[in-house]
Amino acid sequence: MSKPMPLPLPVAFGAPTERADAARNREALLCAARQIVAAEGIDALTMDRLAASAGVGKGTVFRRFGSREGVMGALLNEHARAWQESVISGPPPLGPGAGPRERLIAFGASLFELNRSSTELIAAAGESVQRSYATESFIATHVRYLLRSAGVTGDLTLLAVALIAPLDRRILDQQVRIEHMDRDRILAGWADLVDRILA
Amino acid sequence: MSKPMPLPLPVAFGAPTERADAARNREALLCAARQIVAAEGIDALTMDRLAASAGVGKGTVFRRFGSREGVMGALLNEHARAWQESVISGPPPLGPGAGPRERLIAFGASLFELNRSSTELIAAAGESVQRSYATESFIATHVRYLLRSAGVTGDLTLLAVALIAPLDRRILDQQVRIEHMDRDRILAGWADLVDRILA
Repeated sequence: MSKPMPLPLPVAFGAPTERADAARNREALLCAARQIVAAEGIDALTMDRLAASAGVGKGTVFRRFGSREGVMGALLNEHARAWQESVISGPPPLGPGAGPRERLIAFGASLFELNRSSTELIAAAGESVQRSYATESFIATHVRYLLRSAGVTGDLTLLAVALIAPLDRRILDQQVRIEHMDRDRILAGWADLVDRILA
Repeated sequence: MSKPMPLPLPVAFGAPTERADAARNREALLCAARQIVAAEGIDALTMDRLAASAGVGKGTVFRRFGSREGVMGALLNEHARAWQESVISGPPPLGPGAGPRERLIAFGASLFELNRSSTELIAAAGESVQRSYATESFIATHVRYLLRSAGVTGDLTLLAVALIAPLDRRILDQQVRIEHMDRDRILAGWADLVDRILA
């Protein structure tokens, strides 16, 4: 009788590979989702469509994201994460290398874009899809840091809230879509607010 | 054959009385609703309970308000309307008779209370219950008016948004309930913002 073949060790050796596969799989799905949204708009992003585009079974899509809202939440947070990278280590004036006032103005403009771009996604997914707490707290911490760098004294936590709050996506949506204010006016108003707080 | 009796004119004569009855009825129901909420909290406010307290049939409550959310929306807007009266014609410094800075500071404190008091109601009723557009636009108009009275120049529409936005009920709820900031700190921060904008 021949000795049995040694069994493979699926957990100890298999798990890292499985995790790497899962990450690649997830990335491929998010990439397909982004392409669908960019080409045809959010309404076209269904679980069936996403599975077909990514060449996987619908079960895989559900396993990764739970629901259509789950896909949208993942898109939202991935976008926010990439944006965060550009604030931390991208080129100035958004990234390091410019003065605090210049960085604040650039930050406001880029937060405007981030919040505007998330409006459609959140509207389609329902208010249950929100930006992560990590992103919200990054935004607050970064503004506080720039205020401190600019030599502002006072309750910097509350001053940061005062700068971030008018760029809330609901407020921007009302201003842009209902009141037809243009981006330049909104950002000029925000820069004025920055200057009054820095003065 | 006798002449037919003249028909009563139910619309022409009946309607005003019916409207006055309806208004009284509505007021009695809202009053009962306020008492239930004050004594036992929002969870106790059900359509059955409200009908029993007001001594009317459940059908009447549904006819007046449509749903439990409808009662809550009516409470919210009635409260906002009473508050609006006190800003327009109540005693200073909230009402007329104080200087614009003093009125702004009093307005911020009273908007804080209004927004805090609506948080529980909106949480219980769901986000579909919102303050009316009329109230929102009163708030914006009043702040713009006080800024103009204080001699502030610039984009007063956006500066008013910048003052109102940090007092949003969602932000206040986060600050008070999650971050345990106290009211005095939040209002001192807001007064500092006013002074930076008025400077």
